[in-house]
Amino acid sequence: MTTILQGAAVIGQSGGPTVVINQSLVGAIQEAAQHDCITKMLGARHGVKGMMDGDLIDLSLETADTLEAIAKTPAASLGSVRMKPTAEDVAKIVEGLRRFDVRYFFYIGGNDTAETAHIVEQLSVEQGYKMRCFHIPKTIDNDLRVTDHCPGYGSAARFVAHAFQGDDRDNRSLMGVKINVVMGRHAGWLTAASTLGRRNEEDGPHLVYLPERVFDPEQFLADVAEVHSRLGRCVVAVSEGIHDADGKPFLQVYAEQAGSALAGQADSHGNVQLSGTGALGDALANLVREHLGNIRVRADTFGYLQRSFPADVSPIDASEARECGRAAVRAAVSGDHASGSIALRRVEGGEYRCEPFVTPLHTVAKHTKDMPEEFLLGQNGVSPAFRNYALPLTSGIQPMADLEGNPVNSE
Amino acid sequence: MTTILQGAAVIGQSGGPTVVINQSLVGAIQEAAQHDCITKMLGARHGVKGMMDGDLIDLSLETADTLEAIAKTPAASLGSVRMKPTAEDVAKIVEGLRRFDVRYFFYIGGNDTAETAHIVEQLSVEQGYKMRCFHIPKTIDNDLRVTDHCPGYGSAARFVAHAFQGDDRDNRSLMGVKINVVMGRHAGWLTAASTLGRRNEEDGPHLVYLPERVFDPEQFLADVAEVHSRLGRCVVAVSEGIHDADGKPFLQVYAEQAGSALAGQADSHGNVQLSGTGALGDALANLVREHLGNIRVRADTFGYLQRSFPADVSPIDASEARECGRAAVRAAVSGDHASGSIALRRVEGGEYRCEPFVTPLHTVAKHTKDMPEEFLLGQNGVSPAFRNYALPLTSGIQPMADLEGNPVNSE
Repeated sequence: MTTILQGAAVIGQSGGPTVVINQSLVGAIQEAAQHDCITKMLGARHGVKGMMDGDLIDLSLETADTLEAIAKTPAASLGSVRMKPTAEDVAKIVEGLRRFDVRYFFYIGGNDTAETAHIVEQLSVEQGYKMRCFHIPKTIDNDLRVTDHCPGYGSAARFVAHAFQGDDRDNRSLMGVKINVVMGRHAGWLTAASTLGRRNEEDGPHLVYLPERVFDPEQFLADVAEVHSRLGRCVVAVSEGIHDADGKPFLQVYAEQAGSALAGQADSHGNVQLSGTGALGDALANLVREHLGNIRVRADTFGYLQRSFPADVSPIDASEARECGRAAVRAAVSGDHASGSIALRRVEGGEYRCEPFVTPLHTVAKHTKDMPEEFLLGQNGVSPAFRNYALPLTSGIQPMADLEGNPVNSE
Repeated sequence: MTTILQGAAVIGQSGGPTVVINQSLVGAIQEAAQHDCITKMLGARHGVKGMMDGDLIDLSLETADTLEAIAKTPAASLGSVRMKPTAEDVAKIVEGLRRFDVRYFFYIGGNDTAETAHIVEQLSVEQGYKMRCFHIPKTIDNDLRVTDHCPGYGSAARFVAHAFQGDDRDNRSLMGVKINVVMGRHAGWLTAASTLGRRNEEDGPHLVYLPERVFDPEQFLADVAEVHSRLGRCVVAVSEGIHDADGKPFLQVYAEQAGSALAGQADSHGNVQLSGTGALGDALANLVREHLGNIRVRADTFGYLQRSFPADVSPIDASEARECGRAAVRAAVSGDHASGSIALRRVEGGEYRCEPFVTPLHTVAKHTKDMPEEFLLGQNGVSPAFRNYALPLTSGIQPMADLEGNPVNSE
């Protein structure tokens, strides 16, 4: 039934890195070593760029010890790339891979990466060149379709939940308004994770603003004022992608109103730069200062730590990322699918467990997945259903403690 | 010889919190329970504010389980305060403490906190009211005099070292210039810790700017250009307190030159606000963009995570913080000193170990300690001597790994 396809394999990493993207790399290398039909596992430096330029290394020669150390190292050990290849680029990629008799193509990344795998596959089919093309999911944004969740998200969610736990304690110590900006341009998955360490209504974040909702600055100020008057403090989680009813980023709206250049730089896709700058947090803090008067207001932008901090990885996320790398190689070798993307689905009943399966590339490519309505609560919160969904992915968040605080008996 | 002083004890927490400040609190509570002369351990909410307002709780009633959970909880569980008490305030404090027959006064914090303990002691002596006053050190800034280092610093240094390790991997994945702003207004101790996870010259941060040196923007641009042309990337660690030759903060200089309001808010002491805003990082990133042309530049400001992140505490730091709390109570009860500040000194020879001792309050109060010249290297680096000093405090930083990266044999 299934053809045994003999030849080299290539693997690359693409897009914003995560702390477990190398787990998937190592899983694929280890699994490939189990199959004789894969003669060699090549690594492409900086993704498709390395495939175009012939910048490849021989991953089959890496020692087991190195691989285990790499698996624990954050970010893309092969180097990453942000590049939508043109038709001409894709021709160069396939030409480059054919030169090395590559019959197995693995690409670790998000929806754009799946799209690249898809068009590489299409050209190889057109050329009648047999090559199995698989996408291995990764993104801290958790916005891939089909899959229950994305490797990389659990660890980023763990970091964000812990960050808010600590910052909420800090805010209790020295009261005021604290605004923390969390990564997520289009979807609020990571910002929503800010709530996973909360025990009750008094724990922050008290307000959560996600790109799934329209951001209304008036309502934001009213919300902050209400919480601050009730608790004497207020911790706010804000997704970097908050926007107005027309979808225009709040930072751009604010900058235009202020007539300033605060909006910062546009990236190579022409979007306002939201990561790697503190501008959004500072704009929101200024807004609160201007309108709510003499309150201590601070803003932090968590930045790249969310995707790269090496010392707080979710063990479940790490193990799933490894397994997705292995599953891609198994699926490719099995010949049951000429191509596909690895996705995760929850096994029903009992303790949390997910298993990998193959979904067609086109179901994952291009478009992303917002949080569903059932995970949202009102205009500034997330639901218990979200908590049930997300908490296992972090491997659990230890609750913080309070003193009993018995009042002193008057003498 | 020594008088046994019988009465209540009070303890408070002051200044910016740390992840181990509650370890010292718990250490003091546990030790106090061992001494009959301390009839009760009171906790003051928000430091001297609670002492003035009579906002006190009975810490003797807390369970052992609660105390152990509190010890692991970041930030000040009693609440903190930033307040330099006036003469009138101090009178109120002493009056408040006398009402509860407080004979033991413990105050956890930095140099300002030691100063407060000092003036409280002076007034009680003036009044002929016998009260032993002890300062328990804490600060992520590590800038207290006399002591080898400050509880709280080791964990913050561990966080910063890990953050730079991860961010350096991220910067290898997607190359460019990355600037990270680290806390530290007057001293560079925490920013210097950015180097503790480096293995060699290729690991970032490649440039480290500390307040112990004059910050020259021209030289900064030349340094970044040199590293970027050599490695194709550059990771920079910047202390929030960098300043010109007159001691004026760089952010203020930059804002004045740009004629903008970028300098942000002044705090209650009239200083430019350096924490809780991304303005400095963004200003430096803009500077690089303006002068070095078409390079990918990003800036992150680590912010309050450095002092509050609960999931990456240095075990050595936690245990020393606990011990400092215990040592303060032992010293107070012993009667060998009427007052003092707990300091740490390294035990010579063999593995790293520190032991607590008592130093007079006035030796720690008010003034802070910069990094000594022997810990600095040129204008933009730190020395191996600093590494030897600081690494044990973090409990060690695991090095990152690289692939062997064997080139593919041409077919």
